[in-house]
Amino acid sequence: MGTASETKISILEAAIHYAREFGLEVLSIGKLANIVGMSKSGLFAHFNSKENLQIQILEHASELFTKKIFKPAIKRPRGIPRIRAIFDNWLKWANSAEKGGCIFVAASIEFDDIPGKVRDYLHGVQKIWISSIEQSAELAIEAGDFRKDTNCEQFAFELHSIMLGFHHFNRLLDDPKAKKRTMVAFDNLIERYKVGVSK
Amino acid sequence: MGTASETKISILEAAIHYAREFGLEVLSIGKLANIVGMSKSGLFAHFNSKENLQIQILEHASELFTKKIFKPAIKRPRGIPRIRAIFDNWLKWANSAEKGGCIFVAASIEFDDIPGKVRDYLHGVQKIWISSIEQSAELAIEAGDFRKDTNCEQFAFELHSIMLGFHHFNRLLDDPKAKKRTMVAFDNLIERYKVGVSK
Repeated sequence: MGTASETKISILEAAIHYAREFGLEVLSIGKLANIVGMSKSGLFAHFNSKENLQIQILEHASELFTKKIFKPAIKRPRGIPRIRAIFDNWLKWANSAEKGGCIFVAASIEFDDIPGKVRDYLHGVQKIWISSIEQSAELAIEAGDFRKDTNCEQFAFELHSIMLGFHHFNRLLDDPKAKKRTMVAFDNLIERYKVGVSK
Repeated sequence: MGTASETKISILEAAIHYAREFGLEVLSIGKLANIVGMSKSGLFAHFNSKENLQIQILEHASELFTKKIFKPAIKRPRGIPRIRAIFDNWLKWANSAEKGGCIFVAASIEFDDIPGKVRDYLHGVQKIWISSIEQSAELAIEAGDFRKDTNCEQFAFELHSIMLGFHHFNRLLDDPKAKKRTMVAFDNLIERYKVGVSK
């Protein structure tokens, strides 16, 4: 089982790499078989259908996202330090791809009009992610870092929007200041909700 | 010419409608011929190549965008009233699609990794759009509405990010509060740069 699982992980990582650049829809099991140098029937044994493959790619990306962004951040103290760690890790994730950017941004645009299991999975996993941001804002209120009247849903919307802005300015617009703009926007956001700062 | 041009416009509008939902890459001249009920050779006479078709679709969308968002806004007084008009019209544009959302958001994700004329066109037209937002912020400083130390590039980045956030929360996440969150984020943004409000 160990080896099988490792094989599968390496297939999924190759698939993520491809999907970040070209999208999930164009990645057939046949094409993936070519990329990883396996037989098509061998890959069918792993994934059964293109839809299953797409979902397993997103599940694996989601595990990576949690591991790289959220898990290291919860070691930081509750409140602004933890939120800043989430932001820093997230920006590193969004910026790390030489090609393709964040698979969730690309897949969201690809599947927002295509009802089915892939869209449902994307919808679910991003709702969870947004709830985690909301929760980190609630903890920041409890820790005395954020004002008591902070609307945590609004905070999560605005933080998420900034990261989408980074993706757009960095990738399509090739803006060399994209990262700086994103960091300033984050600081502005924190300033707005921080205790001791007027609205 | 008048009739030819009208025919072409109606073809382009059908093409935009399709591309908003399914993307530009999957729209071949043959598929568009089916959609509009014309011969493939007739459409080739209009567009010559798929790449030309894609660019003409985006050019037409860009004219619509200018007509619906920017032109009505410049009738409003310089400063915050004009910026608010740009935002209101833009939100209406982003929200109007029953299916497919903003063609520029979808095309940006589709083409950010595909070098060529389509990406160049998208890059250019969005740079112009961002410059227009920057300019409207400069006019707001001149009009005495925005603080003198306003970083207009930063303002444009943040406004654009909010609209991308709207697209994401409205379309993939089906968040019924997406529009409200977007409007509050815009008010927060204006508050930050407005004269007479502390940072």
